[in-house]
Parts: sequence; C-alpha cells; structure tokens
Amino acid sequence: MRTQVAIVGGGPAGLLLSHLLHRRGIASVVLEGRDRAYVERRQRAGMLEQGTTDVLRESGAGERLDREGLVHHGLELRFGGAGHRIPLTDLTGRTVTVYAQTEIVKDLVALRLADGGDVRFEAEVLEIDASAPSVTYRQDGRTHTLECDYVAGCDGFHGVSRPTVPGLRTFSREYPFAWLGILADVPPSTHELIYANHERGFALHSLRSPKVSRLYLQVPPDEDLGAWPDTRIWDELAARLATGDGWELRQGPVTDRSITPMRSFVAEPMRHDRLFLAGDAAHIVPPTGAKGLNLAVADVTVLARALTERYASGSETLLDGYSATCLRRAWRAEHFSYWMTTLLHVDPAADPFALRLQRSHLDYVASSEAAATTLAENYVGLPFD
Amino acid sequence: MRTQVAIVGGGPAGLLLSHLLHRRGIASVVLEGRDRAYVERRQRAGMLEQGTTDVLRESGAGERLDREGLVHHGLELRFGGAGHRIPLTDLTGRTVTVYAQTEIVKDLVALRLADGGDVRFEAEVLEIDASAPSVTYRQDGRTHTLECDYVAGCDGFHGVSRPTVPGLRTFSREYPFAWLGILADVPPSTHELIYANHERGFALHSLRSPKVSRLYLQVPPDEDLGAWPDTRIWDELAARLATGDGWELRQGPVTDRSITPMRSFVAEPMRHDRLFLAGDAAHIVPPTGAKGLNLAVADVTVLARALTERYASGSETLLDGYSATCLRRAWRAEHFSYWMTTLLHVDPAADPFALRLQRSHLDYVASSEAAATTLAENYVGLPFD
Repeated sequence: MRTQVAIVGGGPAGLLLSHLLHRRGIASVVLEGRDRAYVERRQRAGMLEQGTTDVLRESGAGERLDREGLVHHGLELRFGGAGHRIPLTDLTGRTVTVYAQTEIVKDLVALRLADGGDVRFEAEVLEIDASAPSVTYRQDGRTHTLECDYVAGCDGFHGVSRPTVPGLRTFSREYPFAWLGILADVPPSTHELIYANHERGFALHSLRSPKVSRLYLQVPPDEDLGAWPDTRIWDELAARLATGDGWELRQGPVTDRSITPMRSFVAEPMRHDRLFLAGDAAHIVPPTGAKGLNLAVADVTVLARALTERYASGSETLLDGYSATCLRRAWRAEHFSYWMTTLLHVDPAADPFALRLQRSHLDYVASSEAAATTLAENYVGLPFD
Repeated sequence: MRTQVAIVGGGPAGLLLSHLLHRRGIASVVLEGRDRAYVERRQRAGMLEQGTTDVLRESGAGERLDREGLVHHGLELRFGGAGHRIPLTDLTGRTVTVYAQTEIVKDLVALRLADGGDVRFEAEVLEIDASAPSVTYRQDGRTHTLECDYVAGCDGFHGVSRPTVPGLRTFSREYPFAWLGILADVPPSTHELIYANHERGFALHSLRSPKVSRLYLQVPPDEDLGAWPDTRIWDELAARLATGDGWELRQGPVTDRSITPMRSFVAEPMRHDRLFLAGDAAHIVPPTGAKGLNLAVADVTVLARALTERYASGSETLLDGYSATCLRRAWRAEHFSYWMTTLLHVDPAADPFALRLQRSHLDYVASSEAAATTLAENYVGLPFD
C-alpha cells in the first residue's frame, strides 16, 4: 500500500492538509486512532484568525463557516470593574470568527469523504520510519504498512510523531493555574468576548453560537472539578465579571465542563528527514489568545505549499524552509500567548509590586493605541508566511 | 525664619521646583546637605524626554541645554549580531535630548542664585513636621527651624522625607544584575544610543558629548569593580556590541567608573498632610529607559502647578490630586522600565524557554510598527498630566 503523503492524525491539521493536497492533485492517506464520532465531538478552541478563515474559504471548506461563523470586530478587556473595548478591526483592518474547531472537523471529514479522500479511523499508528519513509499502523486487528514519499505528523502533543524525531530540542513552561471551562445552553451575555482580570482570578466570557455560551475561570492547576457545582461556577463567574454599572451574567444549564492545564511547549526542529511535524505535535500554547488551532492551520498551509512546489517542480526549497518558517510564527504565538496570559491571570506568587505593574500594563493596553494594536494584530493573526 | 515652600534636597527636582515657584512669585528655600561642588559633580542620568526639555526651556532654564544638548531622533536595538533602528521621532513626532543631569544641576544652581534664590548648601535636614509645618536643619554647627506653608521632599531615596510619612505603602523589586558604567574620553562610536542584548549580557553604548562616551555593562549585583580593569571592560563591551558587519568600538581613557544596582521602588501615597514627596524620594526605576530624572521633573512640574493654583485662588484641588496624578505616571514608568529591562538583560535564572521568548519579543519589537511605537512613546515620554 502506497501514497504520496501519509498523514498521521485526523484532527483539523491532518484533515485540512489532506484537503489542501487533494486540491493540488497530491494523494494522501489520513490515519486517525479514534473513531469518527469521537473526533467530531472533541471540544476544543473556537476563535479563528482571518488567515485561518481565508485558507478554509479559498480551499472550498468554508461554506458552513460563512453561514454560521460569527464575525467579531473587537473584544473587551475588563478590569477594575470597567470594560475597555479593543477595536480589533479598526486597529488592524482584519476580523476574527467564532466557529468551533469541532465544526471544522465535521466539515473537513465530510468534504474529504465526498471528494473520495482516504481517511482511516480507528487506525492506530505504531511506528513511523522517517527515512524509508513509511508508517506502520494497526486497524481491524491487523498490522499494515503505508509507504509514502513524506509523512506529516499531525497527531498532537501525545502522538507518536514527535518521539520519532531524534535529537529534538524542547522548550516548555508550566503555569501555576488551569482553566475550568463550561458550555452552557444560554444566550451569551455579550456580543464580543470579555477577557476579565480580577483579584479573584482571570475569567473569560466567550460563546459558541447565539444560543450557547462558553465561559472559563482561572483555577489552581490541580483543581478538582467535583469541587465546582454549577452554583459555585456561576457565582464565581458573576463575581469576576462584575462591573460598576450593573452588567448582568445570564445563567443556564451547563452541558459540558472540563479543566485544562496551561502549558507552553515548542519542539525544534519541526522536520526530521521526510517527517514534518505540524500543529500540537510540535507546539502547545496556553489557550489565552486562542492560537493553538490557528498555528496548526498555518503549519499545514505552509507544508501544503511546500509539497506542492516539490511535486510541481522538484524543488525542495520550501520544504527545506518549512521548520524555520513555522517556528518563527510559533514563537511569535508563544510569546503573545504568554504575554496575554500573564497580562490577565493572577499569579498566586505575585508580590504587590507585580500586581501594580500588571494593573499599569492593563491601563496602558486600554489607553494607548500602539499598545492596543500589539494585542490586536497578534489576536487577529499576523499574515501567513 | 519663614518661607512659603520649604524644599528638602538640592538635586534637580528641588532646584527645578524652586525655580518654577519663583517664576510664579512663590517663595521657597532649598536645603541641601552636601556642598555645591559635590552636587554639581554627581554623575547621573543624561537622557531627557521632550516634556522635560520643554519644561526647562519654557521656564527659562534651557539656554545652555539648547546650545549643548544633543537632540536624538532614534535609538538602536542590537541583538543577534545585527542592529535594528527604532525611529523615535517618526513614530511619535517627539525627540529626546542627551544632556547630563549634572549640567542641569549646574544651570539651575546658577539660575537660582542669579535670581536671588535661597539655596542653602551643607544644610542637613534633621526633622520634618508635616502638620505645623516646618523643617529643622543643622547648618554651621547650629540647629535652625524653617517654618513654611508646605514642604517638598526632594531628597532622594535615602533622604529623611519619606520616613516622615506614616503608614506609607511601599512596593519594590530587586533585579539579579547591576550596571557597570564608565565615562571615557573618546568620541562615541555611534550617533544614537545602542541598547544591546547578547548572550553574555546587556550592554549600552550611550554618550555625553561629541567627545565623551558613556558605556554600560550588565554585571552580577554583587560585582567587585576591582575585577574590571580597563582592558576587560573594553573587551567585554566589544564582544557584546559586536555585529556581523565589522562595526568597531572606539576605545579611550576611562575617567569615571561605578557599579549601580538595579532596583524598582514606589511609595504610596506621595503626600502626607503638608508634605509632598517628589522624584527619587517617592520612586526609583532601573536605569534602562532613563526615566528617573524625567519622572522627578514631571513630579515637580505637577507640584509647582498645584501650589500656583493654591496661592492664586486658594483652591486645593490640584494639591489634592497630586499623589494620584504623579503615581499614575510613576507606575507607567515603572512598568516601562521593567519591560525594557527584562527585554534586554539576561536573567541568570532564565530557562531556554524564557530565552527563546525574549528573542521572539526582540524580533517583534524590531519588526512591528505597533510594538516599536510602544517602546518609542514611553521612551520619549508620555505627555505631562
């Protein structure tokens, strides 16, 4: 069994790569360890940079996104009991779109299958040979080998792709907090996202649709979800999001809840021989700033372009530049995510000097057009290289 | 013995306050513990914000500054072996001026004496009564009491003014490095200041005049000046300032050397009854960003305006707002100084992740107009309130 590009992992990165390659006449096989229902149900991010929506739309994967995605032109920083709008579009000319990652996965699976794409679920990858190259996987109780020209490692932080790379240099940071996130069947209490800094901790009011709210609370990293009955979650959200002018938080049935640790991670380089790492397999960002999915889309866009050049002209120039190109963007996103995380969260170890600095920094971002623009241009996403 | 405003400390803050009050017809007495020669010799900062030069010029204290000050329109960030100019004036419409603090002190002492001002050197302040109010000091072996309407505490970090204030809340931060600074009789190797980040540590190429260079090296906080003979200083400067294109550092006789610890400090509030703290008595910034002198000038400008209103109309509105107005600016400067310090110095405790973040941050400041503008607008100084 043979293909041009073996894609390990059927999340948004692997599926989009397969779709982009197909549009350029390049064959691929996607190997995903879970079943289709599981993949289409995973709750993840939901804030798309304009570059991400552009790639989906231009490749013909944006039909439902255009219909159901909620285009946003700003966000709110809330601190000291008052809101301060950051007018993203006025400052950058660009927008962001609320559209859940899980919906993108559904769209891409449907599109790949409609186009006759080869997406194999419940196919557990056992081994990657980056030189041969080939991928060994287990499906239906049997072991198979998929031979190929290139392997794309899109199998996330815990996948087998990254450990395959010898001599990888890794960089990481743990944060002294996590996010407790809920989905609630209640119309959002805000049209634009609210990022709140409060002495009790960070809170975020996001949304999934006009009828579904997505809300987050900073909690200790080892927090027990059982310690958070609904009333405690809503009370804490209401306290951290409170303003001086009586703004009200609408409450509703909680349909999903989870605690996500906050971590930064980068592996260098993102290539070994014929194996290319993309998305979470190569880098993790804390969720503040919503860069994870967007970075994955940027990676596979660069990779699809490089493979297209390789098959069209034989030139490996873009493939040779893949790792450096993607790492430049990844480190920018790492810095921004770190910056926005420390701007908004309460570090339990912060001394009074650090807290005053943080408040001065928030005041500055809310009052300086230049400072607001640094937030905005990173948030809507710098241009894809 | 009585005056309207007793000014404790004859550094640039106290002298400028006395000068500004005189211009508005308000009497003051300056009490300075050291002798005149000492005060006029102290080596301190030398980079003036446009707001600072405006105040000096508009008050008639800018004659020699206009003649000898070197107006700068940009600075250079140097890292990764290459320079990146930050065009301060293009980004903000404002300039900075190189003119040493010690020259400002000479100008102000001469001006005060020429105007018949009462500046008492070798007058050691023993006690401040913020309620009476009055100042007790020792001069010529005798103890005197100066009665007044208000006291301005301009006597620096180690002065007696701040300890006079009960219930003060203080905020501070020590940094894990210090600056080894030299003055050298050699024409500067650069027209604009060079702020260099290098794996061996931070270096700064500044200047005092077309014939005198001012250079700094990041060193450990407990460093022994004796461990730094001239050749070691020049070699280290050359290594940290080196570029890929053969830029050369001119060397010359070292005429002054010192090691300065890096510290952030703020005291709140800046007023107690009839006593007003100004400058280093209330706040200290690390020298990166050159905000110390400029903050002191901003403080006394606000104080002079408030006292003028008080004597002209009887209103205490501006005096009542003094502390909050000055602290807002002080915290902005504290945040900026901290930001520029951490952007450029090598923290000995930094892990590889932190070093990569720092490099990404430097790349961002050098490549994003918005990010460069945040540096520039703080460096040239936000408008005086």
